[in-house]
Amino acid sequence: MDSKPERVRIDLADRSYDILIGSRLLDRPESFDALPSGTTAAIVTNHTVAPLFADRLATALRGRYARVQVIELPDGEAHKDWPALNTVFDALLGAACDRKTTLFALGGGVIGDMTGFAAACYMRGVPYVQVPTTLLAQVDSSVGGKTAINHALGKNMIGVFNQPLRVVADLDTLDTLPQRELIAGLAEVVKYGPIADAGFLDWLDENLDALKSRDKAALAYAIRRSCEIKAWVVAQDERESNLRAILNFGHTFGHAIETGLGYGSWLHGEAVGCGMVMAADLSARLGLISTEYALRIRTIVERCGLPVIGPRLGTQRYLELMRLDKKAEAGEIRFVVIEAPGRAGMRSAPDALVAEVLEAHTA
Amino acid sequence: MDSKPERVRIDLADRSYDILIGSRLLDRPESFDALPSGTTAAIVTNHTVAPLFADRLATALRGRYARVQVIELPDGEAHKDWPALNTVFDALLGAACDRKTTLFALGGGVIGDMTGFAAACYMRGVPYVQVPTTLLAQVDSSVGGKTAINHALGKNMIGVFNQPLRVVADLDTLDTLPQRELIAGLAEVVKYGPIADAGFLDWLDENLDALKSRDKAALAYAIRRSCEIKAWVVAQDERESNLRAILNFGHTFGHAIETGLGYGSWLHGEAVGCGMVMAADLSARLGLISTEYALRIRTIVERCGLPVIGPRLGTQRYLELMRLDKKAEAGEIRFVVIEAPGRAGMRSAPDALVAEVLEAHTA
Repeated sequence: MDSKPERVRIDLADRSYDILIGSRLLDRPESFDALPSGTTAAIVTNHTVAPLFADRLATALRGRYARVQVIELPDGEAHKDWPALNTVFDALLGAACDRKTTLFALGGGVIGDMTGFAAACYMRGVPYVQVPTTLLAQVDSSVGGKTAINHALGKNMIGVFNQPLRVVADLDTLDTLPQRELIAGLAEVVKYGPIADAGFLDWLDENLDALKSRDKAALAYAIRRSCEIKAWVVAQDERESNLRAILNFGHTFGHAIETGLGYGSWLHGEAVGCGMVMAADLSARLGLISTEYALRIRTIVERCGLPVIGPRLGTQRYLELMRLDKKAEAGEIRFVVIEAPGRAGMRSAPDALVAEVLEAHTA
Repeated sequence: MDSKPERVRIDLADRSYDILIGSRLLDRPESFDALPSGTTAAIVTNHTVAPLFADRLATALRGRYARVQVIELPDGEAHKDWPALNTVFDALLGAACDRKTTLFALGGGVIGDMTGFAAACYMRGVPYVQVPTTLLAQVDSSVGGKTAINHALGKNMIGVFNQPLRVVADLDTLDTLPQRELIAGLAEVVKYGPIADAGFLDWLDENLDALKSRDKAALAYAIRRSCEIKAWVVAQDERESNLRAILNFGHTFGHAIETGLGYGSWLHGEAVGCGMVMAADLSARLGLISTEYALRIRTIVERCGLPVIGPRLGTQRYLELMRLDKKAEAGEIRFVVIEAPGRAGMRSAPDALVAEVLEAHTA
């Protein structure tokens, strides 16, 4: 079981780093070797994850750091905001943590995004390491350096690009993940098929049941392949000038659902799953892919156990929310569409066509 | 009067930029040529500066941008905080400003620091331009990419390094600057003599009266020379791993005064002026410079009209505040000291010696 972890390299010049994927990584001091020295490690986590893993991570870190602090935030997307972020600053300053403190993000996507942002801003930048404990974070949010908090007027609107020093994805942390969250994570796995690797979608079709029943070998492959694809995209376009935006397949519709319902009502992955169904349908209506391929995407999203019908926010409200999307330019919404199986691109679309998509996929 | 502006180049690879220094720059569209295109410019300013210059800057920008927004913040260091920063995000999101919006910081150091930070974080980064309207901002805070807001437990604790696209320093904006603020700005001018250019201190000795009476030629020279020295330092160490810290001469003591009294009680430059007197005395007590040279620094600070006696916060309180300084490591305070006329370095010092300095310079 203590086999050597797999390594995926994210190639970004002096900001390059490794993703380690394997079992029992959390407890091994070797998972954290060669990180910059300093007296203090601060583990940022939440009330749900802390009782499960914080002591184990702290023990693994004690050989390297004279002092290991644990900072607990409230759990959930609803708390991905300034007051919770400021809790981290309060704790770091209250303990007189200096500019050589390393932060460790122990938790899901919310903890990862907030810790990365806190690390970017604390004393104008301290290093940080991602230790993702959800499937969604292991395949997506902990990799690539996007950090943010939400604003009342839009998701992830306030943040920076800030690469971690390392990502340590311990497969065993998924054992305790609620099934709903495992399924939400599958949305970001499925995503990589249509946008970048048609063959991966075939593999997913065959292995979806194994993934849902948490087969370790299947999870390890899905995580590694997802990270490899993300690494390849991010290495080409770190700051999302262009290509990187394809990683947001399903997110324009998805963010509108999340913001429209209020954060925390749907899980991020659930909104993305439903958003991919909408974006695939839009791609078909734009004549880019066949309706069969759009239906195939819908089918696998549904087989995951993810919602395929969005809430009825009203077409105008959807459009208004999507015009605030970060990819929008001069008020024009830019959608990630599938141009062919395994290839994505960016397009705008007439409001009337988007309205048809919303009509077909909301209730 | 509409002569060609002087240009000082900050050399930072793909983050390089020019500082323009001259008269009537604010009104000239040419001051803003070659900036990235986009539909919206957002001028971030405060209630004091807006009535003086916002319309003029907006007019100069209207040829380039279809829409020019003005966002007004409350004035002063006491408002260099999250609620004021969030006002900027509220306004940008409320007006559906996209990722190609350029921010213009029109005001003093507080506006510059906050606008630079807002630009770094809005949708993970939009470009910004500094249009400093105080002497302090023209010679120091608008150059070099340090951005931040204050935290109750320490000044400038939350921020990032984020270089502007350009700095447009219009000398004419100093005409309306209150004398107290002009004098506060002189502290950051004087600083460059002891830390980097012994000859500049001689020039200052001779031209101080001209500067205080706002002689344009004297101001232009002082601003250009300050920017040149800062450019040279920042180009070598953009993120303050080492050399750049010398620009903080007087700031360790100064920040303790500011935080100890509550932001806004003393102006930043006043605290830095007094802090330089303390740091020069510490340098002499460490045997690095003669007491005569320390006295010479004290004399010019006093001639500026800056305070040379700090508030009696108590030695323990000073030490406690200084241990929170960003340059501190593992609880040890790192002071910028003068090693020889025109050369600075970093040293720690025994608490007892620091106590002597505080005893001698507080009342």
